[in-house]
Amino acid sequence: MRICVAQTRIKAAALEDNFKEIASAVQSATAEQADLIVFPEMALPGYFIGDAWERPSFLNACEELTHRVASLSSRTAIVFGSVGIDRAARNEDGRIRKYNAAFVAHDGRLLQNEALNLPFWPKTLLPNYREFDDSRHFYDLRKLAIEFGVALSSLVKPLSLKLSHEQSVRIGLGICEDAWADDYSVHPYEILSKDEHKPDLMINISCSPFTLGKQDKRRTLFSRLVSKSGCPVVYVNAVGSQNVGKTIFSFDGDSGIYSHTGFSPVGDSFLARTKTFDVPLQKASKQKAPTRIMLASAADRAAEICRALESGLNFLKEEWSLNRVVIGVSGGIDSALSAVLHTRVFGAENVFCVNMPSSYNSPLTIAAAKRLSAELGCCYTSVGIEESVRLTLSQLDAARTSGFPIPESLPSLVAENIQARDRGARLLAGIASALGAVFPCNANKSEMTIGYSTLYGDHAGYLAPLADLWKGDVYALARHYNKNVFGREVIPEETLSVVPSAELSSEQDVTQGKGDPLCYPYHDALFRLWVEEWNRFDFQSTLDAWDQGTLAHFIGPEAHSHLQQLFKTRADFCRDLKKWWSAYTTMGAFKRVQSPPVLALTRRAFGFDHREAIGIKG
Amino acid sequence: MRICVAQTRIKAAALEDNFKEIASAVQSATAEQADLIVFPEMALPGYFIGDAWERPSFLNACEELTHRVASLSSRTAIVFGSVGIDRAARNEDGRIRKYNAAFVAHDGRLLQNEALNLPFWPKTLLPNYREFDDSRHFYDLRKLAIEFGVALSSLVKPLSLKLSHEQSVRIGLGICEDAWADDYSVHPYEILSKDEHKPDLMINISCSPFTLGKQDKRRTLFSRLVSKSGCPVVYVNAVGSQNVGKTIFSFDGDSGIYSHTGFSPVGDSFLARTKTFDVPLQKASKQKAPTRIMLASAADRAAEICRALESGLNFLKEEWSLNRVVIGVSGGIDSALSAVLHTRVFGAENVFCVNMPSSYNSPLTIAAAKRLSAELGCCYTSVGIEESVRLTLSQLDAARTSGFPIPESLPSLVAENIQARDRGARLLAGIASALGAVFPCNANKSEMTIGYSTLYGDHAGYLAPLADLWKGDVYALARHYNKNVFGREVIPEETLSVVPSAELSSEQDVTQGKGDPLCYPYHDALFRLWVEEWNRFDFQSTLDAWDQGTLAHFIGPEAHSHLQQLFKTRADFCRDLKKWWSAYTTMGAFKRVQSPPVLALTRRAFGFDHREAIGIKG
Repeated sequence: MRICVAQTRIKAAALEDNFKEIASAVQSATAEQADLIVFPEMALPGYFIGDAWERPSFLNACEELTHRVASLSSRTAIVFGSVGIDRAARNEDGRIRKYNAAFVAHDGRLLQNEALNLPFWPKTLLPNYREFDDSRHFYDLRKLAIEFGVALSSLVKPLSLKLSHEQSVRIGLGICEDAWADDYSVHPYEILSKDEHKPDLMINISCSPFTLGKQDKRRTLFSRLVSKSGCPVVYVNAVGSQNVGKTIFSFDGDSGIYSHTGFSPVGDSFLARTKTFDVPLQKASKQKAPTRIMLASAADRAAEICRALESGLNFLKEEWSLNRVVIGVSGGIDSALSAVLHTRVFGAENVFCVNMPSSYNSPLTIAAAKRLSAELGCCYTSVGIEESVRLTLSQLDAARTSGFPIPESLPSLVAENIQARDRGARLLAGIASALGAVFPCNANKSEMTIGYSTLYGDHAGYLAPLADLWKGDVYALARHYNKNVFGREVIPEETLSVVPSAELSSEQDVTQGKGDPLCYPYHDALFRLWVEEWNRFDFQSTLDAWDQGTLAHFIGPEAHSHLQQLFKTRADFCRDLKKWWSAYTTMGAFKRVQSPPVLALTRRAFGFDHREAIGIKG
Repeated sequence: MRICVAQTRIKAAALEDNFKEIASAVQSATAEQADLIVFPEMALPGYFIGDAWERPSFLNACEELTHRVASLSSRTAIVFGSVGIDRAARNEDGRIRKYNAAFVAHDGRLLQNEALNLPFWPKTLLPNYREFDDSRHFYDLRKLAIEFGVALSSLVKPLSLKLSHEQSVRIGLGICEDAWADDYSVHPYEILSKDEHKPDLMINISCSPFTLGKQDKRRTLFSRLVSKSGCPVVYVNAVGSQNVGKTIFSFDGDSGIYSHTGFSPVGDSFLARTKTFDVPLQKASKQKAPTRIMLASAADRAAEICRALESGLNFLKEEWSLNRVVIGVSGGIDSALSAVLHTRVFGAENVFCVNMPSSYNSPLTIAAAKRLSAELGCCYTSVGIEESVRLTLSQLDAARTSGFPIPESLPSLVAENIQARDRGARLLAGIASALGAVFPCNANKSEMTIGYSTLYGDHAGYLAPLADLWKGDVYALARHYNKNVFGREVIPEETLSVVPSAELSSEQDVTQGKGDPLCYPYHDALFRLWVEEWNRFDFQSTLDAWDQGTLAHFIGPEAHSHLQQLFKTRADFCRDLKKWWSAYTTMGAFKRVQSPPVLALTRRAFGFDHREAIGIKG
């Protein structure tokens, strides 16, 4: 059977754009005499469109275009994802009933799903964790089984596709999560495999966002499905960028054909690719031992992050029609990496570097910022903040004179934050606006966790591209760029070796080795337990782990060796733990509400993937 | 039967605080010889705690305290909401299986739910719309019915509570949404009513956030349940403030006993109240016509909003330990209302008003700002922005000189936004920080919809208390305060009568009648169709409504009369529509990601109640 795998770029809610992609791929597939072309989940409407699912006229447009896609299937059958609408029934919010559905079109018409008397096959398992909100918008086959008073298995059936050559193919069709069923009591592909007419082919259409390490899991999962079901599996995932407001996801594709001979990928990850395969449909015994397939090469974490970051940023640049970027370069590691990343994606001619010194900035970091800009070939300038900060402080004095109870001697934090806001909201925002540019927030995940940044200061920006990277990852990525991408010292050695510091007071003087109040090798590991661990640690369980001597196991030996140097006593450890736990759950959570969108990389990015209330100390 | 209704204040994840509330109420109820005391849904852990449900040690603590509550039930039986944990099974995210559950304790022990062999009664219907995320965290009885291969009705049963006097009471116990089942195919209270042993009493425990107009619906719903079930209904809802990050909800209580003689409320809305009732358990015929019950007096929308805003802000002030507030008073209506609201809640001695004029601010609005502050009795000062704005513009010139391609003649918007950011991020943030205060964002819902505010400028703040109020509501509320609360002109007449304007350029000169680019009586109504209408309008359906002549029906006659004056032709209408639709879905959505938390009032507040991706034009 000749099958075209269409790893298309899907844009959220851009129906006409998505239709054009589909139409063009169908045309190519027909030219190649493919029997079948398979598109991703939600290929027509896009997937992460938030509550726009509640717009009836959008749904009407989806329905109309679904029929237009069907009309393209006169020679090549089409499997594609879209929203399935049942106007005769209601969702549980009282709105039109909708399904996350797979459509099958052949001979110019949509095939009918006899079990439901509807022209589509709904997703059985609706993910409702991390960033996923499927059950908010879509109805559920299990609810339907209860409504109908029937067994679920009677609603999950393979379909028969009659090809032109008198040949009929039985297809087990599922959508994304249907294959990731380990934690569910229901296993759609097992139900499909058990059907008396065993399927000849399994298809999984997905719109599955990139997460670090997911490709390996995915390949293991679908090669296991080949072994279990005894038939080849067509896996089609989207590429592109879709966001859920605060959190921006990239889609990596990684589509292809899984069979007993291994995995045949459609081509590069993150790029729109269409490829036609001749897939033999011989059924094999289910008992056959799993075939070893080639997994992705052993993870070079930095290289994988690098690819994901640049792809994600590139998608976003296009989606949001961005042209120019202004970067506040401090000479520190975060702004250096941000400058590198933006230069790679936007081009040096569109990246403008600004150093904004006060008296607290060392000649060392200032020189490093300037050198970085020169190495990258970006336009560079220096704009001071001393005068403006002085003015603000004098206006505070005036307010005191007029009766505001402002203390004569202000805490250092007040002046520190004035400097940070002066750089972000006054200068960078002003320069970006004058240039028709945007400016990024360069906060990393360690800082984002505890709110170690100033609102409207270094917390501000159009995007926080590094906010899903721990400080240790930032260093690793910077070294990776120098060594493997540029092959020279683009990010200056001073930037890599200087103590990380905000340089906002004499207490943060890098020339005296003073800087951030964090020991990143330890605190990164600690914060990861709170944020990324599947069963999350909190204050109490972290303390319990210390008491039980199991903390080293969870944070790893390197972090643990730092811990041992940092804290002499349980009381020392506990004081630090309490301070940062409180920062994470109160001020950190409060600041995250106002943070820029975060480019997601890990399996727990801040924002919609990490839903939180402000002040949940627990 | 003597029943104590415990409308307690519930704090999110504050287990010990909540336990103390419960213990103290049980003690009072026992002193009053109550047979039963009923607490709200999730009375122990709190409800909106985000992904903190994923912390195993928090769940352990919940379990332990659940048993401590049970131990208090030696003389008075206790019904309360908490998280039900089944360690023998998994949720579909692979974590410990959790239920949103009702617990019943008697004689010092938890009653066993025989149908499930678990010591609690799970919520049957898990809301998954608006701000609710129940199905993200909690398992579902319908999933369980499929897992067990049994009918759902076998899992939803009344329970028998044996009271001390040899009397046994059959209770139909449900949680919040279980009673709001109109749009579901499953109706828990109908299943409970149909049980062969008809219940003597229905209980609904809720943690149901305040929404404008909800009290009327709620009272109608539960009095209908009395008629349908033929027995009294105990309704217990929480009070307090819980947030879902971006959106902050207040809980209004409105608890009491519904019976054939009407509704007996526990006392004031929004306040913690405990009251004991003697409830006769005579069963009545189901056929009996619905008894008329007294609904809340005909809605005075302004008074209801006023109560909800002040209660919500007061809760938040306590939760977040806020003391002082700085308000940028412009002389306009939004900052005036914000100053009034904060003064009512924080006291005049803790509210500091700052006027920050540039050359574009009229003497009229400056004088109005000063008079408002004097009327409120707040400390007032004036701090100019001219010098700082001049400095910023000169630094842009310097950047141009050093090679940045900044145009000689900047678009007006650049200088406008520099002024707004200078006020917000430089002055207000600086003064607030120096005073140990916070400053609010005074944007209203009309502005929030289309992003008509400057990021890091007037868009900044600790909270956007007015962001769920349309501009028309802001005026109505301001008039309500003057007339019905103060009985005098606290908000100056000039503020009420001047044209709404940002006063950031000569094009916004109020003395020449120039101001915002919106005609609020029309645009408020238009934006409401996009944001609050259950089946949302989008660009196309709004245009269709114009074409079909139905728009007047949807926006109302007043808005329509303005529309007719605004637009002579379809092209005029369409141009305006397109402009604001694009602003709503792109720049507006982008800015909302970075907006402060919003105090929710309507049935669609921005944030978690209005989930959106950036750029969904549709």
